[in-house]
Amino acid sequence: MVLSVIPVEGIGEVRPGDDLVEVICSAVGLADGDVVVVTQKVVSKAEGRLVPVDPDDRAARAAIVLGESVRVLRRRGDLIMTETRHGFVCANAGVDLSNVESGWAALLPVDPDRSARRIRDGIRGRLGVTVGVVVSDTFGRAWRRGVTDVAIGVAGIAGVVDLRGTEDALGRQLAVTEVCVADEIAGAAELVMGKSRAVPVAVVRGVERSWLREASVADEVVRPHREDLFR
Amino acid sequence: MVLSVIPVEGIGEVRPGDDLVEVICSAVGLADGDVVVVTQKVVSKAEGRLVPVDPDDRAARAAIVLGESVRVLRRRGDLIMTETRHGFVCANAGVDLSNVESGWAALLPVDPDRSARRIRDGIRGRLGVTVGVVVSDTFGRAWRRGVTDVAIGVAGIAGVVDLRGTEDALGRQLAVTEVCVADEIAGAAELVMGKSRAVPVAVVRGVERSWLREASVADEVVRPHREDLFR
Repeated sequence: MVLSVIPVEGIGEVRPGDDLVEVICSAVGLADGDVVVVTQKVVSKAEGRLVPVDPDDRAARAAIVLGESVRVLRRRGDLIMTETRHGFVCANAGVDLSNVESGWAALLPVDPDRSARRIRDGIRGRLGVTVGVVVSDTFGRAWRRGVTDVAIGVAGIAGVVDLRGTEDALGRQLAVTEVCVADEIAGAAELVMGKSRAVPVAVVRGVERSWLREASVADEVVRPHREDLFR
Repeated sequence: MVLSVIPVEGIGEVRPGDDLVEVICSAVGLADGDVVVVTQKVVSKAEGRLVPVDPDDRAARAAIVLGESVRVLRRRGDLIMTETRHGFVCANAGVDLSNVESGWAALLPVDPDRSARRIRDGIRGRLGVTVGVVVSDTFGRAWRRGVTDVAIGVAGIAGVVDLRGTEDALGRQLAVTEVCVADEIAGAAELVMGKSRAVPVAVVRGVERSWLREASVADEVVRPHREDLFR
């Protein structure tokens, strides 16, 4: 089945208190089984997760980052790699000054899975269609250059799909194949969003039906410390 | 622009010496600007990167992994996280027993960028169309559960796209936005491949034209040690 990744154009500036469900439903037609990918930035703005900051005050910025973090992993210049309260390991605790009005910083949503559920439930209530929702953000990675978009919250779409025990094409058992489809969907959406084109929403159409189920990033994607070889 | 991710069905078992260009061109129609994503497994098989191994002999398997590695980063049970000669950090140096005939293991291609270039050049010679090629493999990540497909080799398509200095939607300069589109393309392709459905090739249609340029994973995506905070 062919997968389509559709940029949702024409979404203007999102402000605290805006109804994202209305914003999305006014901008694009949706069908059962679609996955709606919404960037963290507009979710944080709609939820009012903005704090004032003097962009030239490095200490103030660092204080905001540390306030969103439970531990610091690495620090180099202005870059602070921390673990957020959600368990995400990312640069500057996801606190972002780009695509935000000067003098303000956007924090990650308090509970991005809940943010995704609210959007999913709102779309169902408004249109009567059942979609998956991914809240995405842009993270760096260890060992590889460049950032990619990943899922920080999901609703109605799997985080990790467990293919362990499935037979491969030669009839052998596959040993470990837990695929993080939520991150792959977030990354696919980024390919049509760009960073500077004000496309904060994309629709991914044609995902496997069996992936459309209750899930959360917190439960499925965040790796617990006891499993983690690199923290 | 809508992006389409098209699984290429009907590709049978690939064997050492098989002509992958012929295999791909016989299975799907291609147009200028398409990106052809080919999984490492069929590239390694076509290139004869197979070694015999007793699947029950753990020491023999470990010896193969270490032979493909320049250093060991972590070890837990049968899992050895190493850095390969290419500079990839991944489980078991990318050596894989799944989707390979019993008694054999598939090693990574010696130079996956070169593998990608050969396929790209072959398609151009055969069909007269200029495509990008991504050789993909399935890697785990630090801090996040589940594997995703990433690019281990590219030809004719960017590894990392540099958006630094581009203005964001509010006219502010973006600080750091080097996006690893090659990994996002590989992950998008995985969404239509599955792991057990024998779909080793997918076509990603509709990527930004400006991304279609000379590039290599070795130069653009592998993070040099001096930049790396986690190695």
